[in-house]
Amino acid sequence: MGNCCERAGNFFGPQKNTNVRVSLPAVCFVWQIAMIILFGVFIRYDDESDVRLWIQHKLDHNITSDIENDFYFRYPSFQDVHVMIFVGFGFLMTFLKRYSFGGVGFNFLIAAFGLQWALLMQGWFHSLDLTTGKISIGVESLINADFCCAGSLIAFGALLGKVSPVQLLVVTLFGVTLFAVEEYIILSLLHCRDAGGSMVIHAFGGYYGLAISWVLYRPNLHLSKRLNGSVYHSDVFAMIGTLFLWMFWPSFNSAITDHGDGQHRAAINTYLALASSVLTTVAISSMSQKKGKLDMVHIQNATLAGGVAMGTAAEFMITPYGSLIVGFCTGIISTFGYLFVTPFLERVLKLQDTCGVHNLHAVPGMLGGFIGAIVAAAATEEVYSSDGLNMVFDFTGSFANRSVGTQGGFQAAGTCVSIAFGLVGGAIVGFILRFPIWGDPADDNCYDDEVYWEVPEDEETLPPVLEYNNHMIHKHQDISESNFSVEQS
Amino acid sequence: MGNCCERAGNFFGPQKNTNVRVSLPAVCFVWQIAMIILFGVFIRYDDESDVRLWIQHKLDHNITSDIENDFYFRYPSFQDVHVMIFVGFGFLMTFLKRYSFGGVGFNFLIAAFGLQWALLMQGWFHSLDLTTGKISIGVESLINADFCCAGSLIAFGALLGKVSPVQLLVVTLFGVTLFAVEEYIILSLLHCRDAGGSMVIHAFGGYYGLAISWVLYRPNLHLSKRLNGSVYHSDVFAMIGTLFLWMFWPSFNSAITDHGDGQHRAAINTYLALASSVLTTVAISSMSQKKGKLDMVHIQNATLAGGVAMGTAAEFMITPYGSLIVGFCTGIISTFGYLFVTPFLERVLKLQDTCGVHNLHAVPGMLGGFIGAIVAAAATEEVYSSDGLNMVFDFTGSFANRSVGTQGGFQAAGTCVSIAFGLVGGAIVGFILRFPIWGDPADDNCYDDEVYWEVPEDEETLPPVLEYNNHMIHKHQDISESNFSVEQS
Amino acid sequence: MGNCCERAGNFFGPQKNTNVRVSLPAVCFVWQIAMIILFGVFIRYDDESDVRLWIQHKLDHNITSDIENDFYFRYPSFQDVHVMIFVGFGFLMTFLKRYSFGGVGFNFLIAAFGLQWALLMQGWFHSLDLTTGKISIGVESLINADFCCAGSLIAFGALLGKVSPVQLLVVTLFGVTLFAVEEYIILSLLHCRDAGGSMVIHAFGGYYGLAISWVLYRPNLHLSKRLNGSVYHSDVFAMIGTLFLWMFWPSFNSAITDHGDGQHRAAINTYLALASSVLTTVAISSMSQKKGKLDMVHIQNATLAGGVAMGTAAEFMITPYGSLIVGFCTGIISTFGYLFVTPFLERVLKLQDTCGVHNLHAVPGMLGGFIGAIVAAAATEEVYSSDGLNMVFDFTGSFANRSVGTQGGFQAAGTCVSIAFGLVGGAIVGFILRFPIWGDPADDNCYDDEVYWEVPEDEETLPPVLEYNNHMIHKHQDISESNFSVEQS
Repeated sequence: MGNCCERAGNFFGPQKNTNVRVSLPAVCFVWQIAMIILFGVFIRYDDESDVRLWIQHKLDHNITSDIENDFYFRYPSFQDVHVMIFVGFGFLMTFLKRYSFGGVGFNFLIAAFGLQWALLMQGWFHSLDLTTGKISIGVESLINADFCCAGSLIAFGALLGKVSPVQLLVVTLFGVTLFAVEEYIILSLLHCRDAGGSMVIHAFGGYYGLAISWVLYRPNLHLSKRLNGSVYHSDVFAMIGTLFLWMFWPSFNSAITDHGDGQHRAAINTYLALASSVLTTVAISSMSQKKGKLDMVHIQNATLAGGVAMGTAAEFMITPYGSLIVGFCTGIISTFGYLFVTPFLERVLKLQDTCGVHNLHAVPGMLGGFIGAIVAAAATEEVYSSDGLNMVFDFTGSFANRSVGTQGGFQAAGTCVSIAFGLVGGAIVGFILRFPIWGDPADDNCYDDEVYWEVPEDEETLPPVLEYNNHMIHKHQDISESNFSVEQS
Repeated sequence: MGNCCERAGNFFGPQKNTNVRVSLPAVCFVWQIAMIILFGVFIRYDDESDVRLWIQHKLDHNITSDIENDFYFRYPSFQDVHVMIFVGFGFLMTFLKRYSFGGVGFNFLIAAFGLQWALLMQGWFHSLDLTTGKISIGVESLINADFCCAGSLIAFGALLGKVSPVQLLVVTLFGVTLFAVEEYIILSLLHCRDAGGSMVIHAFGGYYGLAISWVLYRPNLHLSKRLNGSVYHSDVFAMIGTLFLWMFWPSFNSAITDHGDGQHRAAINTYLALASSVLTTVAISSMSQKKGKLDMVHIQNATLAGGVAMGTAAEFMITPYGSLIVGFCTGIISTFGYLFVTPFLERVLKLQDTCGVHNLHAVPGMLGGFIGAIVAAAATEEVYSSDGLNMVFDFTGSFANRSVGTQGGFQAAGTCVSIAFGLVGGAIVGFILRFPIWGDPADDNCYDDEVYWEVPEDEETLPPVLEYNNHMIHKHQDISESNFSVEQS
Repeated sequence: MGNCCERAGNFFGPQKNTNVRVSLPAVCFVWQIAMIILFGVFIRYDDESDVRLWIQHKLDHNITSDIENDFYFRYPSFQDVHVMIFVGFGFLMTFLKRYSFGGVGFNFLIAAFGLQWALLMQGWFHSLDLTTGKISIGVESLINADFCCAGSLIAFGALLGKVSPVQLLVVTLFGVTLFAVEEYIILSLLHCRDAGGSMVIHAFGGYYGLAISWVLYRPNLHLSKRLNGSVYHSDVFAMIGTLFLWMFWPSFNSAITDHGDGQHRAAINTYLALASSVLTTVAISSMSQKKGKLDMVHIQNATLAGGVAMGTAAEFMITPYGSLIVGFCTGIISTFGYLFVTPFLERVLKLQDTCGVHNLHAVPGMLGGFIGAIVAAAATEEVYSSDGLNMVFDFTGSFANRSVGTQGGFQAAGTCVSIAFGLVGGAIVGFILRFPIWGDPADDNCYDDEVYWEVPEDEETLPPVLEYNNHMIHKHQDISESNFSVEQS
């Protein structure tokens, strides 16, 4: 089948070479060897995962029980985040009828590739010990590395089915690098709070992917239209992704918040916002169709918008009903996005967004940033207490005298920084990806696993008359002959 | 296809109107807005999730470490329960060949809808502060809200494929309300122990669903018989649900038990009972078939009976071998239920129970209640120690002088209360659902996602001769013409 | 279809009797009753799960908080391991086109059967109180029981599709027994460290399965060749297994390591090794195919080799870059194994290994054992500190004076013991399984769920012309007649 498609492609222009037999292994090997060398130079265990240092740490801090190790505060959340990254994002992208291998497989490759680079990049910016020249890593570093990959995985959603695995590795390499820089600017220089990453993960990742996709516009993509859609079973597979994202989003938003009340509150707020999103998504989805039928695209995606939009504010005292309101509004906005904005972007702005990351990540992430700014600016000592305010917003060191109003302003500025990084960075990366060396598929050959995967011959795709004959032979005649003819076909 | 089914339906009576374009969005919006208002009036963070109160709480109780926050005792269990509710129940109900969207999608809707109402209802009954008029929520509230939804999801199992989403929201609204009341009676007034909810969740939910289904009896349901069954892949999807329920049931039964030994023991007991259920389910399933073949219906369901039946006794000192015995017996009983009782109920009692909740929830839940009563009555100071007895059965306050024998009697009474609530409540709700305004499908149109979902056109469902032609064209002729004809079909 | 296959089988020799209606229930019942009796005699709650003993334990050890209960250190890891055993192994084995029921269902049966026997066997060897004659169990026992089952599940991978469920129970009975003995020799007598079980789980389980498969060699297995492969959807199902194994492997390797830094470090090391494996697996997979396409068999399996190979060394101070190197090498070795060694073994050694456990478990497990030996021998006081060295290698009691060099030697010896147990034990069990009483399928009847499962009639497998007619009837004519003809077919 792969062969015939390629031949058919000649009707529409020069055949593209999708052979990645040299480039993909080369990138993987070079990259992995570089990682080993850089890890050897820079990365060490931190105080809580090094046996000598932990014994010393317990003595120094008068800790009597191992339960005080950060592992026990964060490891369950880390595993939930890990599931979101690999199963959540991965299976959400299996919805296409013939790109499930690519959806879940390339997601796996991107994340495994990106998290190593993320440990280094984030380490250099956030935890490089200048006296020893080493980066210390612990469970919180692993969570942050997973978060960092999420930005590139979001971008993958906009590009799904239209790029080669080598291009995806380039997207990830630059994505992780840009992420670390914008994160440093937003969290360290502007001193924003963004535990669940509405700004640094979702707004950045969404606009990064959209900008790349815009630069890589394919005018003849309608030639692959037959494969740009789901079948019944692929939609059920995608629901695995949706549900694991939905269920574990409270862990995502609380994974790196303050111990104690911080993690506790972030989980509650996210749980409520997500529940609220489901109701409004169902409502708008049903309203939008003549007979009130629900659309799987909305259920798979817009139900998650509440989690995205709570990424910044979840750790604040937004109140339970505030969380419900956030979920209420973003569920509506996201579903409307799938109904009207994505088609508009494609028709008018020439922006092809396979998974609709505009509606699930870019816009809810941006809104989440501004919601965070508003909630921060509205914080009062009465609600938080004086100590609480300093803890939640980390008003210490050179930021000890910052007011909540100023903090709100910086939060809003941080949102703009993340969007700018996504758009500019994405545009540059998009131009890099237009070089004709990356092995991307032709316009009539997109959304097809045949291009980069050994796809098993499905019995169902045999021409039916032949299949009928095989069946009959198989059932009533000499079985060895039947086997022979099956292999022939 | 939807169209033709509807036309065919005219052979058997007036066509039903399954359009929910007004009712479903209306219910979702009204409901969600009501939730926001009620949450605004009533719901606040509790001591352990509010930044100001947690700082104060730590001072008051001389707590030095954030690890003492209830979040770290219960959040991992909460996430396991959350997975059971959304993926476990959801995927267990994807087994029908053409109702997988409805199975997993409506499960999602019900749970997201129900958990908000559950936080309020359970809050009013259990944690309303009468001085402030506020309900405080924390991670334990979220677990209880998930539990409360489980009752309605069990009822959904009996109704699967036969009701509209609007009816399901009505079932949930009343289900959560009834749940909160019976739970208050059983746990607070009768002072029963029921951490894993054999009584309050499973017996109630099972009989609630059965009573509704009995009132909604469809005499011509055989007209939908062609869709009331599984296909190969849908059975594999259902195993995802089964396994996540089975694996995380120890967390379900231990999620809200006492800190320390209570959670520890409940997990061990449930683990053992479940393992034992698997063996006897396989044995009976194999025995029941002429050639000893296993039936997926049994493996998907009866293997879980041990977890249901341990819902009350798991936190008691039932002993490891006691747990094995419970699993042994309920595995047998549940499998026999699928073999003999469900067909009997349908034929004789006119009770159509799609998922067989009678055998998985109603009967094992009832048995679990009585097992709990027996184990409670048999408790001795020798085994529990005096302090232990007071802790496990919470013999404090006005119940300080209750004997274990009396406790056993109350446990048995509690089981009867839960069944009575289920049967009476279900009958009333069933009659409400018979009004011809809810958009439910006709008898020949059940178990079909076409009714409430936009279902993608499967290539496989094209008439084969046409498909054959498309194939040939696609392979050997002009590709643009082929695309054209696919779109036409 | 089952019938016709059986008839066709007569062309090739005497028909095998695959009826397990007596043997399977008999084994399950006898076994489960034996378990109840033995649990009654031997198994009790341990200090941390018994209410009386935990109260006493807290007094004796001056513990003030329930968070010190081992439940809170290990339960999240236990649940991750539990998911690996049931969903991870189970879904990894759904990849065959018509053996998904068997893959996930028999996996479920084996594990539920094995974990009970494991609690007893491991209890007798490791935690039998000689004064009371009782075995105390807690959450760590549950993890060890799951680990113990993993050995037999690995062996199942080599036998997938070729044996009856009764044979699998025999494999498990002996597998768990052998496991407990070799584990006792390796961990207690040789005093090796092997927290993630490179030796005791993977090397043992892999060689055990290979030896059984070698003895059960089927010369005419090519007659089932048509079913020995995947289809598109079954490969996506298998990715569920792969990803849950991959994501939770850090929990697997850290579940029973030392509290605090031990669990923390083991998780980090495994996380890194796994990420590195993914990159080299993708590289070799792409290089091996003419057009650089990826092979799902490699992605599903070889990506996990890094986790297997870190099973021993994960808790040591192997350093982060050391972990990357381990993953780098084992990813390459495992993928080469799938490409060259498995075909070689089948052709030359007459060893049929359905899942390729040789490449995923046997060889990486063996390598993991030797890597552990090297890392142990290279341990220095400078890196570990003196106390740390004693803690990590448990140099206490009669082993107080053991040097790290000696420890390295014993680790290597332990690896050899595990392989020897696997090979010899597997050969013996294989001969037992050759008796013609176990109900295994004929050579032309392998990899087929029809043999041991009630398989739903797929609409798609109807002969296409008939299906076409049904379609037309169903769409345009009397619907009741259509139903009739569907049932006839």
